[in-house]
Amino acid sequence: MSAPATLVLGGQRSGKSRYAESLVESQPGACVYLATAEPHDGEMARRIAEHQARRGERWSTVEAPLDLPGALASAAAPGRTVLVDCLTLWLSNLLGHDRDVAVERARLCDTLAALAGPAVLVSNEVGQGVIPENKLARAFVDQAGRLHQAVAAVAGRVVFVTAGLPQTLKDIPHT
Amino acid sequence: MSAPATLVLGGQRSGKSRYAESLVESQPGACVYLATAEPHDGEMARRIAEHQARRGERWSTVEAPLDLPGALASAAAPGRTVLVDCLTLWLSNLLGHDRDVAVERARLCDTLAALAGPAVLVSNEVGQGVIPENKLARAFVDQAGRLHQAVAAVAGRVVFVTAGLPQTLKDIPHT
Amino acid sequence: MSAPATLVLGGQRSGKSRYAESLVESQPGACVYLATAEPHDGEMARRIAEHQARRGERWSTVEAPLDLPGALASAAAPGRTVLVDCLTLWLSNLLGHDRDVAVERARLCDTLAALAGPAVLVSNEVGQGVIPENKLARAFVDQAGRLHQAVAAVAGRVVFVTAGLPQTLKDIPHT
Repeated sequence: MSAPATLVLGGQRSGKSRYAESLVESQPGACVYLATAEPHDGEMARRIAEHQARRGERWSTVEAPLDLPGALASAAAPGRTVLVDCLTLWLSNLLGHDRDVAVERARLCDTLAALAGPAVLVSNEVGQGVIPENKLARAFVDQAGRLHQAVAAVAGRVVFVTAGLPQTLKDIPHT
Repeated sequence: MSAPATLVLGGQRSGKSRYAESLVESQPGACVYLATAEPHDGEMARRIAEHQARRGERWSTVEAPLDLPGALASAAAPGRTVLVDCLTLWLSNLLGHDRDVAVERARLCDTLAALAGPAVLVSNEVGQGVIPENKLARAFVDQAGRLHQAVAAVAGRVVFVTAGLPQTLKDIPHT
Repeated sequence: MSAPATLVLGGQRSGKSRYAESLVESQPGACVYLATAEPHDGEMARRIAEHQARRGERWSTVEAPLDLPGALASAAAPGRTVLVDCLTLWLSNLLGHDRDVAVERARLCDTLAALAGPAVLVSNEVGQGVIPENKLARAFVDQAGRLHQAVAAVAGRVVFVTAGLPQTLKDIPHT
């Protein structure tokens, strides 16, 4: 039996990370913050620090800028909840390191389907604005969309956050 | 009595076309794929080919890059369902050929209001990102928004797709 | 006892202003249009004129490009409804005049929490597209997201408009 994954989608500064954290903290037991930011990214380091300042003693942090499937499989366990923040940053890292996105996406979905404990995955909705002229940006939006579709298909629950307010897009009772 | 039209909106790579296809295939009878892509567009030709590869023998294809209202009126009939993919591409073609968008939008809505059979129309949500600096892009987003409002007003059903998951925005029982 | 505020969010040309106006006009009594556009902005002047042309004799107009909290506190009263159109323009004005956005955001939320009459506030969803490369645009999207979260937290009702169709994100009965 696998534990269900929840995908939390939202735009920039939509409150999605904070909402995801509140979901994780509503669970009993330990909380693992699985950060996908690369350490050398200053703006992201600041955001991680902000997140850490909000979190308390129940939390530990694991950094996984590239091998998210491996880190998630290791971190997931009964009695603790993993927060992955965020998938778009992971995708950006994969592209920056010339990894095969389709392979990594499939690895992540396989991991999610066999997860040993609950996980909440945060990701940025980036595809509802004007189609970017820049070919790389367009490719990124395409890959983000494919990733969201794939993760949403295996997740038990999908929530879209707007202005801090959650809308449930999918909720399959866990059996 | 007119047959109802369904508008399927969604961001880039949101799974909107696949969802719209599944709606069409859930209907009995023949299926018509009304493609608005211009043949010379390489990326779009590839996408049409991808779509065709997914579809089976129930489908036929009609190309209508500019006269969508006329093609839709001809294709619609009791016992078969038309899939229009997509309205944003049609809008882009109208603008590229200096057609009067307001006139064509009104023609499309008149056609939808008097449709002889069911139709599902796909379109790209492009207006929920940062407002583009480029004046042409801003005009395009404006026109897309006007088109979506007008089509949504005559459609019996409007669905928004995110990460492959549909949300119903409007559903008026067909009488 | 404070009267509830409603936040109406939506993308560009989503029909959010028209929907917000219909909400205001469904209330009894006078209607105040609180415009945040700066007079020198031609495109915005045109939009204000369009809005005015749509509105009838029940309406009066107040311009408040910078001191929105003060103007809103003055305009709000039992028996009349204030329409604020729109928050993103106000934010843009604050940034253009080097005002402290965090201070102004807090002033607005304090005003909303103590409002003497009903108000409907319109704002542009700008954070669901690709993350802008331009640092200023990214900062604007961040500030818009923070503003929406803060206003949504004090508003009694939050509605998201897509293609002219409203979705309720929050609705707390007024006591």
